[in-house]
Amino acid sequence: MAKIKRLQPRLVKGFRDVLGQSVADRERMIARIRSVYDLYGFMPLETPLIEYLDVLGKHLPDTDTPEEGVYSFRNPDDEEWIALRYDLTAPLSRMFAEHRRDLPTPFRRYQIGTVCRYEKPGPGRFRQFTQCDLDTVGAAKMSADVEILCALCDAFEAIGLPRGGYRMKVNNRKIVNGLLEKAGLPLEGGRHLVVNEKPVEVAVIVMRTLDKLDRLGRQGVELLLGEGRKDESGAFIKGAGLSADERRPILDYLDLSLETSGRSEVLQALEEQVGSTKAGGEGVMELREIDRLLSAAGFDEERVAFDPTIIRGLGYYTGPVFEAELTLETVDEDGRPVRFGSVGGGGRYDTLVQRFTGEKVPATGASIGVDRLIEALKLVETGDEEAPLPPVLVTTMDKSLTEEYQRMTFELRAHGIRAEMFHGGGNFKKQLKYADLRGCPAAVIMGSNEFENGRVSIKDLRMGAELSNEIEDHETWRKDQPAQVEVGRNEMVQAILDIFARWKR
Amino acid sequence: MAKIKRLQPRLVKGFRDVLGQSVADRERMIARIRSVYDLYGFMPLETPLIEYLDVLGKHLPDTDTPEEGVYSFRNPDDEEWIALRYDLTAPLSRMFAEHRRDLPTPFRRYQIGTVCRYEKPGPGRFRQFTQCDLDTVGAAKMSADVEILCALCDAFEAIGLPRGGYRMKVNNRKIVNGLLEKAGLPLEGGRHLVVNEKPVEVAVIVMRTLDKLDRLGRQGVELLLGEGRKDESGAFIKGAGLSADERRPILDYLDLSLETSGRSEVLQALEEQVGSTKAGGEGVMELREIDRLLSAAGFDEERVAFDPTIIRGLGYYTGPVFEAELTLETVDEDGRPVRFGSVGGGGRYDTLVQRFTGEKVPATGASIGVDRLIEALKLVETGDEEAPLPPVLVTTMDKSLTEEYQRMTFELRAHGIRAEMFHGGGNFKKQLKYADLRGCPAAVIMGSNEFENGRVSIKDLRMGAELSNEIEDHETWRKDQPAQVEVGRNEMVQAILDIFARWKR
Repeated sequence: MAKIKRLQPRLVKGFRDVLGQSVADRERMIARIRSVYDLYGFMPLETPLIEYLDVLGKHLPDTDTPEEGVYSFRNPDDEEWIALRYDLTAPLSRMFAEHRRDLPTPFRRYQIGTVCRYEKPGPGRFRQFTQCDLDTVGAAKMSADVEILCALCDAFEAIGLPRGGYRMKVNNRKIVNGLLEKAGLPLEGGRHLVVNEKPVEVAVIVMRTLDKLDRLGRQGVELLLGEGRKDESGAFIKGAGLSADERRPILDYLDLSLETSGRSEVLQALEEQVGSTKAGGEGVMELREIDRLLSAAGFDEERVAFDPTIIRGLGYYTGPVFEAELTLETVDEDGRPVRFGSVGGGGRYDTLVQRFTGEKVPATGASIGVDRLIEALKLVETGDEEAPLPPVLVTTMDKSLTEEYQRMTFELRAHGIRAEMFHGGGNFKKQLKYADLRGCPAAVIMGSNEFENGRVSIKDLRMGAELSNEIEDHETWRKDQPAQVEVGRNEMVQAILDIFARWKR
Repeated sequence: MAKIKRLQPRLVKGFRDVLGQSVADRERMIARIRSVYDLYGFMPLETPLIEYLDVLGKHLPDTDTPEEGVYSFRNPDDEEWIALRYDLTAPLSRMFAEHRRDLPTPFRRYQIGTVCRYEKPGPGRFRQFTQCDLDTVGAAKMSADVEILCALCDAFEAIGLPRGGYRMKVNNRKIVNGLLEKAGLPLEGGRHLVVNEKPVEVAVIVMRTLDKLDRLGRQGVELLLGEGRKDESGAFIKGAGLSADERRPILDYLDLSLETSGRSEVLQALEEQVGSTKAGGEGVMELREIDRLLSAAGFDEERVAFDPTIIRGLGYYTGPVFEAELTLETVDEDGRPVRFGSVGGGGRYDTLVQRFTGEKVPATGASIGVDRLIEALKLVETGDEEAPLPPVLVTTMDKSLTEEYQRMTFELRAHGIRAEMFHGGGNFKKQLKYADLRGCPAAVIMGSNEFENGRVSIKDLRMGAELSNEIEDHETWRKDQPAQVEVGRNEMVQAILDIFARWKR
């Protein structure tokens, strides 16, 4: 045999395989989210995995690489830069701008798809993930934003989260802009700092800093607004360099957010703090309208709260911003409490389509991140009993009986029972080990003797496992509750259904 | 306003958007294929969109570009070449090789996912498409191949194709190898031709030529096996340059395939033509076993036929090869007959995993191409009545009633009725035009008068359209069958359901 150079089978860093029940769980979750989006009357859309880079733009939150979080490369056709999509909003803007004359306006669409980001991977953080997006393009009214918020709440409940187990948190970029105006830090034409060799407005850096409140706490943010702070590794992180006068309104704003909770209470405090600025006043007015429509639809503060510290990393938001938070108390396998935090979000982006059309096109939307939700729901008892059983294994002990084995397999399937015939080589022990690895609930066994007598043996594989754990005197249960029964060939299906009635999943 | 440079909203060549009913149709098709694969007891798997290029290899059929059909670029992490996956088989091989110690063997998995190929796009041919793959790794037995064939047949019927509307066609690469051996054209160590500046075995070129039988016909293939032929544009295409002696067995083989049809008839003819060669003899024996197991499972020639001209383009096949063909007579929108041809295929690839493990790992599988099937099914009456109606539109005529409009929308949804509230600006006419574009079956209309009297108007939008087409005397039907009714606010849901009972989809 020719010597073959062995390749290393390996994944690209930050990517992963998903196998078996996890795939099925995800598909079920996506189907339920889809049905809510459908019920709300949004149209499904699919756009390509690849787009021109300039069409997508680079709107991701600050990343530390020159790639700015985007996988890009040259299109072999025209040598232009193309990129893997990193969200579903930029492609929607492109699609709407391209076809707006033929599309109904407002254009309400949902899209469920995979995106890739060249960002730092970590535990539970991958570079490819699935988003379930919901957007309305061409609607300036706050009723469009409210609808998005309600649909997300309904989607979370459809996948099994209890009310109170999640919360939509809402803020408005206009309010943040009002705050920056008040602090004397305009979004354009103000001071700059150099980040990754590029000049960045101090106002933008302040927003990014506020966005880290969750992780750094109030004191961490205060230090980063000033000269800087030491991180966990002891390295010094340079701050935004604000003066005490510049910092004061921002810190007051943070304190407000930590001290207020009800939607009306937050509205009143925001009115006092930023209502006098043009942007801030508009922002508060929009939030008031959102509050009014949410209340009319019966979505109270348990489901949708106002939180002035919500910023959202993506650069294109212009109005209300949303963040979906899991509030369930969960523990990991070792019993330690786990905080899942954000599982989705979005906001209004009135200028994203403008890049193509030259004129403002109001738009709003949000996204649910399926992968983190799956992880979270694994740790939560959601009462989901729909997961199907693994297949029944039809063992193949006698080569001359292959046709009969195949016939039995098809017979089980015809009764809606997941079933497979063992195609590998190996003895009975090896086949049962395979069944064990697969989690098969039952095995069908037939030798030539049984075949001639029209009989077949059925083994309840879970009973075997359970009993050998629980009962010490094997001889006793073997007689009373045999894990293996011999039945007539025509009773095979019923014998399997009897076992299924005993075990679930 | 700052002057903004306008971007051109444009798709990368060969890619496309899919909107609305087409997405829903595809999702429904995928769900049905998935349920067949589940019933057969295969495990779902998801692998990343990106893999290392050497891990994938370049196995696509002859393409005319140096990219060989693959979108590849440098991984920013390690500067190694990575690529968008172009099929789901190479990633499966990688995944199995990586985890084989923890996986049950045989490892039976299905994967439904998107792949990208840098190939020449054309009408209905895109560079991104969805495949539904089914594979068994670690099983040498033909029963594994037969199971794949049966599952594909069942999947085609599950999505609504009538029996006789599709056919699986089976051949064996070993038979083709036997033929090449007989013609004196070994797969390795024979003559070469230079293609795209690379030396290619003449035997490989002969296989590629045979694969074009469908398109070129017997005479075209005969010319291409010899000196060459002129194509439609008049350009001369150089042939494989076989001598008459080399061509004869190959042309006999082609004639055999055109003259025989039943599985036993084909087996007998193949036995006569290539049975005496080692590879050919093995190949015929394998096909005999496949025939036997198919017959035992009740899969006759209408569903699975043997066709010696099936080659399959991908380079990694080593044994049985399959091709799924739509045989339905269909016509396009202009009444012209359409041949859809291949909508899937696969085969045995016993050496693909070997690249990683150093030892042969038998494997077999097949794939259904969803996108071409969708196109085909559009032209076929498959009796599919499950498609849901577009949403009911709650019009928004009076800003002060926004909360009531929203309440009505939620009320409809609570009854499982897809519904949306109009978020755009504009008068009644504009809103009805929107409803028309969306295909809405009904509109809910409420002004302040109606609100105060607890009334609401419901407009049957399809009746309006139908009647204005069919009936000339508008005044007559307006009285007898009013397309718009006023009902009590608490009768709104029932009035909508009454309209639904009249119209479907």
